[in-house]
Amino acid sequence: MITRMSRLFLRTLREVPADADVASHQLLVRAGYVRRAAPGIYSWLPLGYLVLRRIETIVREEMDAMGSQEVHFPALLPREPYEASGRWTEYGENLFRLKDRKNADYLLGPTHEEMFTLLVKDVVSSYKGLPLALYQIQTKYRDEARPRAGILRGREFVMKDSYSFDVDDDGLRRSYQAHRDAYIRIFDRLGFRYVIVAAQSGAMGGSASEEFLADSPIGEDTYVRSPGGYAANVEAVTTPVPPAVDASGTPAAHVEDTPDTPTIDTLVAVANDRFPRADRPWTGADTLKNVLVVLRHPDGRREPVAVGLPGDREVDTKRLEAAVSPAEVEAFTEDDFARNPALVKGYIGPGSLGLGRASGIRYLLDPRVVPGTAWITGADAPGRHVFDLVAGRDFTADGTVEAAEVREGDPAPDGSGPLSLARGIEMGHIFQLGRKYAEALDLKVLDAEGKLVTVTMGSYGIGVSRAVAAIAEYSHDDRGLIWPREVAPFDVHLVVAGKAPEIAAAAEDLAAALGVAGLRVLLDDRPASPGVKFADAELLGMPTIVVVGRGVADGVVEIRDRATGERVDVSLAEAASSVVAATRGLPVPAAQDAAEV
Amino acid sequence: MITRMSRLFLRTLREVPADADVASHQLLVRAGYVRRAAPGIYSWLPLGYLVLRRIETIVREEMDAMGSQEVHFPALLPREPYEASGRWTEYGENLFRLKDRKNADYLLGPTHEEMFTLLVKDVVSSYKGLPLALYQIQTKYRDEARPRAGILRGREFVMKDSYSFDVDDDGLRRSYQAHRDAYIRIFDRLGFRYVIVAAQSGAMGGSASEEFLADSPIGEDTYVRSPGGYAANVEAVTTPVPPAVDASGTPAAHVEDTPDTPTIDTLVAVANDRFPRADRPWTGADTLKNVLVVLRHPDGRREPVAVGLPGDREVDTKRLEAAVSPAEVEAFTEDDFARNPALVKGYIGPGSLGLGRASGIRYLLDPRVVPGTAWITGADAPGRHVFDLVAGRDFTADGTVEAAEVREGDPAPDGSGPLSLARGIEMGHIFQLGRKYAEALDLKVLDAEGKLVTVTMGSYGIGVSRAVAAIAEYSHDDRGLIWPREVAPFDVHLVVAGKAPEIAAAAEDLAAALGVAGLRVLLDDRPASPGVKFADAELLGMPTIVVVGRGVADGVVEIRDRATGERVDVSLAEAASSVVAATRGLPVPAAQDAAEV
Repeated sequence: MITRMSRLFLRTLREVPADADVASHQLLVRAGYVRRAAPGIYSWLPLGYLVLRRIETIVREEMDAMGSQEVHFPALLPREPYEASGRWTEYGENLFRLKDRKNADYLLGPTHEEMFTLLVKDVVSSYKGLPLALYQIQTKYRDEARPRAGILRGREFVMKDSYSFDVDDDGLRRSYQAHRDAYIRIFDRLGFRYVIVAAQSGAMGGSASEEFLADSPIGEDTYVRSPGGYAANVEAVTTPVPPAVDASGTPAAHVEDTPDTPTIDTLVAVANDRFPRADRPWTGADTLKNVLVVLRHPDGRREPVAVGLPGDREVDTKRLEAAVSPAEVEAFTEDDFARNPALVKGYIGPGSLGLGRASGIRYLLDPRVVPGTAWITGADAPGRHVFDLVAGRDFTADGTVEAAEVREGDPAPDGSGPLSLARGIEMGHIFQLGRKYAEALDLKVLDAEGKLVTVTMGSYGIGVSRAVAAIAEYSHDDRGLIWPREVAPFDVHLVVAGKAPEIAAAAEDLAAALGVAGLRVLLDDRPASPGVKFADAELLGMPTIVVVGRGVADGVVEIRDRATGERVDVSLAEAASSVVAATRGLPVPAAQDAAEV
Repeated sequence: MITRMSRLFLRTLREVPADADVASHQLLVRAGYVRRAAPGIYSWLPLGYLVLRRIETIVREEMDAMGSQEVHFPALLPREPYEASGRWTEYGENLFRLKDRKNADYLLGPTHEEMFTLLVKDVVSSYKGLPLALYQIQTKYRDEARPRAGILRGREFVMKDSYSFDVDDDGLRRSYQAHRDAYIRIFDRLGFRYVIVAAQSGAMGGSASEEFLADSPIGEDTYVRSPGGYAANVEAVTTPVPPAVDASGTPAAHVEDTPDTPTIDTLVAVANDRFPRADRPWTGADTLKNVLVVLRHPDGRREPVAVGLPGDREVDTKRLEAAVSPAEVEAFTEDDFARNPALVKGYIGPGSLGLGRASGIRYLLDPRVVPGTAWITGADAPGRHVFDLVAGRDFTADGTVEAAEVREGDPAPDGSGPLSLARGIEMGHIFQLGRKYAEALDLKVLDAEGKLVTVTMGSYGIGVSRAVAAIAEYSHDDRGLIWPREVAPFDVHLVVAGKAPEIAAAAEDLAAALGVAGLRVLLDDRPASPGVKFADAELLGMPTIVVVGRGVADGVVEIRDRATGERVDVSLAEAASSVVAATRGLPVPAAQDAAEV
């Protein structure tokens, strides 16, 4: 197949688009792969759509190969199933909602657990129809508060979502593993550098949820790894809980004047200055910091909450949000302080927090605050702190929460060593759902004994349009995109470099021969200068660039590898087979070698 | 490729779904191809999605072959471009509108003229970038007042929409013709029985718009044909205008008492009884009937309008709506009568209608009411009619309108003979848009002389998901679906008819051989009875059914042609090549012939 650039619907841009801050976004717009239609909503131009469809094909092949069956649901969905599952409300503002002409409520599907559950309920009535795996490649909608990085986090995007249906937990584990294996094959074929991380600790032993993260400094997900092989999204990291401490030797709590110590640093300084400890100085880790936030529940209710954690750590909002999901975290405002006069800003302590206390605000503790540990913390009076306040003896809370930041060097929860941190782009997510949706929508089948049992489900997603951006993000240089062969829109970018008729004729002949050989050829037959053409070729990023130019007079054309930058002159007579070899990663004999043969 | 029915996500239904009134809808649901998710919104099950994708592939191949380039727009679109073109309002209730979390207005795209125009404006600046043809295969949304017949007229559906861009009218005509030719190839490949009809009379000479209608009695479109080759959608038929009549011999208009004649029939009877005409009796065609309707304009405004037409014809609401589009036609109610006291129900005449008359209601005449024609019509008084009222002499109107029904035997507008009527399903529509959108959105390019000129556009659509239903509609029998080979989900439906191990083994071997030969095989390996399997095979509708049953003992299997019902026993040893031949429409040697060879 030969596509002529003179006819291609394409305009490349030299300047960086004003709204693009990451490389993939800049390059995909500059190279004419996508164009913004509205915030977080993009149109696919011919080159971009070719990449998208190649990725779809890889995903489809691997899903079919694992025995999953392709279906296709509407994107415009009725409210009722999402009401039954609770997600009509839980999704909050992330859901696009609309009404039809009869005033009935609809939504644009963000993901389709409910619809799949109902369809399987309609079709399968016996364990004999299970296990079952279904998938679709479909346009999804989420009204993201902060769409970013072009198609990396859009509001309309293409996802492959799959669902598995099993009669028992063993079956679910097998289905999960089969999807995990298929995902590994897919991401390997896409050429990703990725890591599989735990996304949530297992409720059934083992990991109930994992993410496939493409390694990338611009990724929105932070993950951790240990030398012993532990890997998890930072939101899924659990804090190793230290053993309880014997507090029998700890003196009674005593309140001290600590004027002008509204921060941990000022408090530690005053403590070391005025109340020094014999064996070692006080540090932030000896203080208990109480951070106030507001949870915005899906029904719109605002609930103030206090998080108590060692003073040397900050609250990680994403970890807190993961812990309190589906609630979202908002700031505790001056108005909130005004509504809670028992709170003394800068000196808030357990004395005012939790059930039965002055503020009544729900109080959640970091898991490190185990019974018996003694703390310096606010005394709920201006300029005063309490020392030797012992957890369990002097105060209690309403529960624990995983909200403290995870730091480089923290211990892995499984004892496999210190954690290191990195960032990634979430490309896939596999999840043992269990029976949540089947129960909400009453999906039961007869088991082998003739008993009705609730089906257990898995849910598995891949960001297909996101993959285009993620590949561009990890595979580019300062001159442009560098597509892996499996997803490139064309195999060969053939540049006609010169106006001489014999150059054009040689290029046309070579293009025709490559087309016959089954290669997809982009032929730059425009009347532009070689410089413009080379710049565009590097920007567009086909893996193999062939230059047919002045060398034709000497029977030579040049093959460039876009990724490595290697260039080799090959004999014009052998050019077609040399280019085919290059596109297969085989050695390409240089012209002089060819001549020697 | 072999798919086992024991694993296929499928449940066939014996009973007809309650909400399905046309055969394609009934069969596609019964055979497990689609399932209703909401009114006018359907989910595609594995078999249905295979058909949909095969049709997409045919459309894509032909669009690519004609040089159109595939792009993909969002379905969720910002309001502004549709505001600029006027369609945000014009679409009225047919448009799904919604707001995002920032309260910005969006719509679900019903068609994409505006977005394509803007994209081309962004990419092309010179005539050198034209002509240009772009297309997409995409999910579209229309909030139909009356979704019907399953996927035949849904609210979410898949369309191929294309747009052409040219610098001048000649270019547009060439682009239009190229699309017309591609559509003929597509519909020929789909195996349709279709007709190409004029959809709108040409503004530039010749036809500016044509529809591809699949011949079908359940079609929503009525079209006409003449022996001389004229073909048009009934909405596009223009009435041949008779020459003006010399009214100098017509007596002055005279009002007569005609009590109890509120209908045309009663009026004609009274006229013949009490005011007989010498040469021939009065007929309904001598009367002028004035029909009141209300136009609902896109901005919500209700405008009463009167249509005057010969009394022997009814108003065809679809023709009237086409004539007054984008307004919709509503009933003239008792309240409307109450608001217009000058109107005497049953005796309304030109005396009360039109500019400066008593009601002031806009008055539009059938084109047959030419100057000089004399009519019996209402005298705007109870029980009274006026005779010899001459158009142009005694009354005028505000214009003409094509609203009267077209009847079998009416003359074709081009003089090519009497019209016959039939019904069809609109499968494609090609349209010379001209400069409407380019002007609204300022799409200009530099021409060869360096002058800025407005681009002229064409718009071309194919109902891709509708095609699944239309094919099912014309190709089925009372036992089930009958898929043409080009779109069938599988080439061969292989029925294992019997429990004997040698039958299963023979079937497995044959399926494997067919798979190797490149056929897509649906293998019915379920433990069901042969009767159930045969019924399902006929319901599902694969073009070739192969039965491996008791004949295996005699070295024989049966090949059935689903469309013709022909059955032939072939030798088991030669079964694979016989089945391959059958799927290619080649002659299949029967077992005894084979034995003789």
